[in-house]
Amino acid sequence: MNTFGKLFTITTFGESHGAGVGAIIDGCPAGLEITEAYIQKELDRRKPGQSKITTQRKEEDKIQILSGVTGGKTTGAPILLLVKNSDARSEDYENLKEVYRPGHADFTYSAKYGNREWRGGGRASARTTLAQVAAGAIAKKYLKEKFCVEIIGFVDQVGSVKSEVDYSKVSLKKIEANPVRCPDETAAKKMIALIEAVKAEGDSIGGSVSAVIKNAPVGLGSPVFDKLPADLAKAMLGINAAKGFEIGSGFCAVEMRGSEHNDSFYAEKGQVKTRTNFSGGTLGGISNGENIYFRVAFKPTSTIAKAQETLNRQNKSITLKAAGRHDPCIVPRAVPIVEAMAALVILDHYLRYKAYK
Amino acid sequence: MNTFGKLFTITTFGESHGAGVGAIIDGCPAGLEITEAYIQKELDRRKPGQSKITTQRKEEDKIQILSGVTGGKTTGAPILLLVKNSDARSEDYENLKEVYRPGHADFTYSAKYGNREWRGGGRASARTTLAQVAAGAIAKKYLKEKFCVEIIGFVDQVGSVKSEVDYSKVSLKKIEANPVRCPDETAAKKMIALIEAVKAEGDSIGGSVSAVIKNAPVGLGSPVFDKLPADLAKAMLGINAAKGFEIGSGFCAVEMRGSEHNDSFYAEKGQVKTRTNFSGGTLGGISNGENIYFRVAFKPTSTIAKAQETLNRQNKSITLKAAGRHDPCIVPRAVPIVEAMAALVILDHYLRYKAYK
Amino acid sequence: MNTFGKLFTITTFGESHGAGVGAIIDGCPAGLEITEAYIQKELDRRKPGQSKITTQRKEEDKIQILSGVTGGKTTGAPILLLVKNSDARSEDYENLKEVYRPGHADFTYSAKYGNREWRGGGRASARTTLAQVAAGAIAKKYLKEKFCVEIIGFVDQVGSVKSEVDYSKVSLKKIEANPVRCPDETAAKKMIALIEAVKAEGDSIGGSVSAVIKNAPVGLGSPVFDKLPADLAKAMLGINAAKGFEIGSGFCAVEMRGSEHNDSFYAEKGQVKTRTNFSGGTLGGISNGENIYFRVAFKPTSTIAKAQETLNRQNKSITLKAAGRHDPCIVPRAVPIVEAMAALVILDHYLRYKAYK
Amino acid sequence: MNTFGKLFTITTFGESHGAGVGAIIDGCPAGLEITEAYIQKELDRRKPGQSKITTQRKEEDKIQILSGVTGGKTTGAPILLLVKNSDARSEDYENLKEVYRPGHADFTYSAKYGNREWRGGGRASARTTLAQVAAGAIAKKYLKEKFCVEIIGFVDQVGSVKSEVDYSKVSLKKIEANPVRCPDETAAKKMIALIEAVKAEGDSIGGSVSAVIKNAPVGLGSPVFDKLPADLAKAMLGINAAKGFEIGSGFCAVEMRGSEHNDSFYAEKGQVKTRTNFSGGTLGGISNGENIYFRVAFKPTSTIAKAQETLNRQNKSITLKAAGRHDPCIVPRAVPIVEAMAALVILDHYLRYKAYK
Repeated sequence: MNTFGKLFTITTFGESHGAGVGAIIDGCPAGLEITEAYIQKELDRRKPGQSKITTQRKEEDKIQILSGVTGGKTTGAPILLLVKNSDARSEDYENLKEVYRPGHADFTYSAKYGNREWRGGGRASARTTLAQVAAGAIAKKYLKEKFCVEIIGFVDQVGSVKSEVDYSKVSLKKIEANPVRCPDETAAKKMIALIEAVKAEGDSIGGSVSAVIKNAPVGLGSPVFDKLPADLAKAMLGINAAKGFEIGSGFCAVEMRGSEHNDSFYAEKGQVKTRTNFSGGTLGGISNGENIYFRVAFKPTSTIAKAQETLNRQNKSITLKAAGRHDPCIVPRAVPIVEAMAALVILDHYLRYKAYK
Repeated sequence: MNTFGKLFTITTFGESHGAGVGAIIDGCPAGLEITEAYIQKELDRRKPGQSKITTQRKEEDKIQILSGVTGGKTTGAPILLLVKNSDARSEDYENLKEVYRPGHADFTYSAKYGNREWRGGGRASARTTLAQVAAGAIAKKYLKEKFCVEIIGFVDQVGSVKSEVDYSKVSLKKIEANPVRCPDETAAKKMIALIEAVKAEGDSIGGSVSAVIKNAPVGLGSPVFDKLPADLAKAMLGINAAKGFEIGSGFCAVEMRGSEHNDSFYAEKGQVKTRTNFSGGTLGGISNGENIYFRVAFKPTSTIAKAQETLNRQNKSITLKAAGRHDPCIVPRAVPIVEAMAALVILDHYLRYKAYK
Repeated sequence: MNTFGKLFTITTFGESHGAGVGAIIDGCPAGLEITEAYIQKELDRRKPGQSKITTQRKEEDKIQILSGVTGGKTTGAPILLLVKNSDARSEDYENLKEVYRPGHADFTYSAKYGNREWRGGGRASARTTLAQVAAGAIAKKYLKEKFCVEIIGFVDQVGSVKSEVDYSKVSLKKIEANPVRCPDETAAKKMIALIEAVKAEGDSIGGSVSAVIKNAPVGLGSPVFDKLPADLAKAMLGINAAKGFEIGSGFCAVEMRGSEHNDSFYAEKGQVKTRTNFSGGTLGGISNGENIYFRVAFKPTSTIAKAQETLNRQNKSITLKAAGRHDPCIVPRAVPIVEAMAALVILDHYLRYKAYK
Repeated sequence: MNTFGKLFTITTFGESHGAGVGAIIDGCPAGLEITEAYIQKELDRRKPGQSKITTQRKEEDKIQILSGVTGGKTTGAPILLLVKNSDARSEDYENLKEVYRPGHADFTYSAKYGNREWRGGGRASARTTLAQVAAGAIAKKYLKEKFCVEIIGFVDQVGSVKSEVDYSKVSLKKIEANPVRCPDETAAKKMIALIEAVKAEGDSIGGSVSAVIKNAPVGLGSPVFDKLPADLAKAMLGINAAKGFEIGSGFCAVEMRGSEHNDSFYAEKGQVKTRTNFSGGTLGGISNGENIYFRVAFKPTSTIAKAQETLNRQNKSITLKAAGRHDPCIVPRAVPIVEAMAALVILDHYLRYKAYK
């Protein structure tokens, strides 16, 4: 339900128009230095209104740590992270009160729970991913400090605009250099132009996010069900609007031969390495010391300005024309969420791994 | 680790060259009629040696039910499913004793556990998927009998040979009509020809499996982390050789516009329906009553006859030339595994759903 | 760790001198009417300063519901319950900064986490049971409204003062009629006198709480590990200061004969009943429709005014004389905690039970 | 349900008159030497027919390891333990087919599952505890070899015959010296005489088992819900016929003063020690390095030869007179079960502890 992880767990709460959103982190090792300012920086990467290609909605998104940290350090007790909602004007959503918005969870939530939060999607709102980003920020910090693991995500495609990126050389700086978070500058420009054009039409566009996990030790992941790729896949498909996941060669593997796909082993300074990395850094579900990389597909934002046919709660056909300001493309803001979820998976598996060392 | 599910759980055991493989099913509702013969039929779909395009290895794979079923009906107690291994000739694997086979888990298991089963992959062997298929057979039966849910998988692509299949009309009969399990007869012929050619070269080839889940009630899946697509993704990426998962529009969503992707709602006989189904049967992670469909990418079989560069356990470079008989393409035999894992996910979520009705 | 339950789960957070304490409830069915005022009433039963026999410390303990409830009803989304801490004067604890208080968790927390909250016990503080009481209040309400289950706890012994109480006739009103929460008035007076005497000596005294669960349906509890008594035992031993648990005949069973202990079955209006109830309402770990009753032993409060020999963090022997105001006997305030934890167990098992009906 | 533990888990299966009983152990560290002979020795301690004071029923109870162990060592993969049932004569139970036996789970299982195994109790049979003993044997071995932890149980009371035993000095040899497993020889003789007398009357008698865990490191157990005493309590109340659990001072704490109960700290060779051990080796739910000791109450065996009033499945009153050979007192055979469950708890917490070191 609302808990993720086995040893490093997060349990999230909150909805778009309640008091706030957040998470309890349970199982965070003691002694990690954490400040609200550090987490805030990660949240700001996800924040609306960052640039002209994201929604112009303004949200404060100010993080508060209410437990589990004393004197700037984690104590080993549960950490409560809270981001209060600013006073949202519910009137903005009045026209949505009775509508099942296409592509949104209004209908399924209504059917499942017998009630419905019509103001901004309630629990299904992407606003709830704030909790994941805040918790993931802590996991990322621990991974980096304790064993130099780095997790970097970037936008690799928007609509039909593809980028050329060598994931093994990608840097945070290059990604943050443009608002679309694509380290290929030429592609980035085209992506921005496309997003602006789509926005002008009152429409939205899909995209994909790639991520690389560097320096993960050999041995993370469990055989059979809790394979590292399996847990990453679950984490990614849990993100709002995600439609697909692939690791290493991914769907390209379908057209490949074994003689081409098998990554040959060789030794370098006593370390086992592979000449290629089609496996994406795991073999049999367990990390092999190479870069772990994967890609996540996101659908176009469901909220669009264009008129759409739909139903209201009385099952009457109506035409919906959304007001409000929305992201024409979700992927630039999805980057920190992908990184955060990956960090949660890796840290959780790292703790399991330590239990047996 | 080796347990999957929350209310309907399976815990598997066994390795390629031990006494056998199998699973304990816990949480199976009482009163379901189950026979070994019924499960055997599903296992036979996965069995090696079915046709000229699968491995010619012969395995008996005879299922035994050792607990939880009395008088042909489940009792509510745990069900132990066991498939004994036939006496494997370990000599066949003597030459692999010291080798890290490319694409296989030999190296990562060795690094993680400090030991290694060199005979046929041990716990990492695809033979262990027998357990999933047997357990999934029980889940499938329950789903079909209790609420008419049907789960049908098929091969939709092998190498670059794609099929044209309307997932909403696909039938088990058509799929089982040819050894490659592709309901598009023209494509099936080409796939078979490709697999034979690849086999003749001592190589292997990738492929993909699609599956459709029909008649799932509205309301399966939990918000945030345990979304139905998230749990399906985890289940699929847990299958040996899986490299990718997509649901509904999947990676195609990347290039789509919102106005195109949003499935319009309409009402039919009091039921909420959608005109298109790019969402793949879920909205906000919860089933919406439409067909749930998804696709899984599989890499080419790692074992090939061609010579390969690799290392032995002493980190010395060697050339490996695999003897033995292996599947040139894994996807025809992966179909029942994909169905089984999907059935486990759906039944588990169905029981969670009932807890709140 | 800090999560309890499988379908109806609570995850708690907070420490005695941080920002506050509370819990996320996940898996609460939608549609239950809940107000802060209702929860507050349960919290007030646990509050310090209620009477002359509890600590005179004043705490506000004001509950806030920050998510999961809209328009006075649960939505099915996680419910965040928060009780802010009032500004505690840390100076009061200055003398404890370096001390391992006997009977407290100072030493074990320090050894486990490498840090220590010396102000009021930190995470180990009994203040954290506020979260359980608040969450249990919601479970109790659901159980009562949906299937008339009632859970009533009371003090049955303080020191050597025992009460005579027929658990099947006990009522909330009678229990709340005196500050020691013992429905046997004569015993209650003696208990109060004893507590006052002990307090005057700067000492503390143990006690026990009994509880009865009425109207639980037949069939709650799972065989083998998740027996209803097993889950109740875990819940109770998780409460601060608890040292023992017994159900039905409990430790008296040790001296009984089978012919005496076996509860004979008889039928009444088509219902299977038992003539006695030594089993305490469960057979084979599953509720049998009779009253479920159990008893929990609590040690005397560890904080006392009397001088005690102990160590400081430098392993030097010192004499500790506690200042501050503390409960001379914990059991009157433990009653709502016992009820709350029992409610969490019963509701969790009720949801599991529904999954299979 | 049928799984216990978080990192070192056991999932059990089997019923009294099916093919067999057993367990899958998941999460056992690789490299532990394990033989069937070693496990068999532990099983033999639980076996019926050991002496004149246990049931005269003969059962083979021969253990088989079907997976997870290669070359005499655990591999890190799941371990399947199987004990086949010998061909039981179902005729012996013919007269029980329609009866709800008092004190047994016949009625509650029937109500919960809508079916019933009338031959020997089915899943509710104490025969299923074989699985726990076998799995616990492995946990015990690991604990002893890796960090010298010893777990020793013994009978401390039968009926009103109490023993005088210093738990800190108790040895396996002394316990196994007599058939009642009580290290106090004088008491043991009286216990045996009492059991024989009770047996002659066709009746049964209760008893209690104490256990001590030596050399557990400081820091096992998690705050709040997964306290070590809480997990031990759950484990013990999950054993058939258990009615109560107490740790350290247990129910005696009720009558104690704080000044008496608080264990004073002192230092010895740089180690923090306590002068008394009323806490039973844990503070705030976490082990403090002292001996962990606890006591479990068992009811008298429900099966007795004396005539009893009861119902059949048609809710008709009948008189039941049990044939067959049964234990007049369960506790001598419960000793290895208590030890096994304690070992599972300690090893599970030890692995969690390692995850954070």
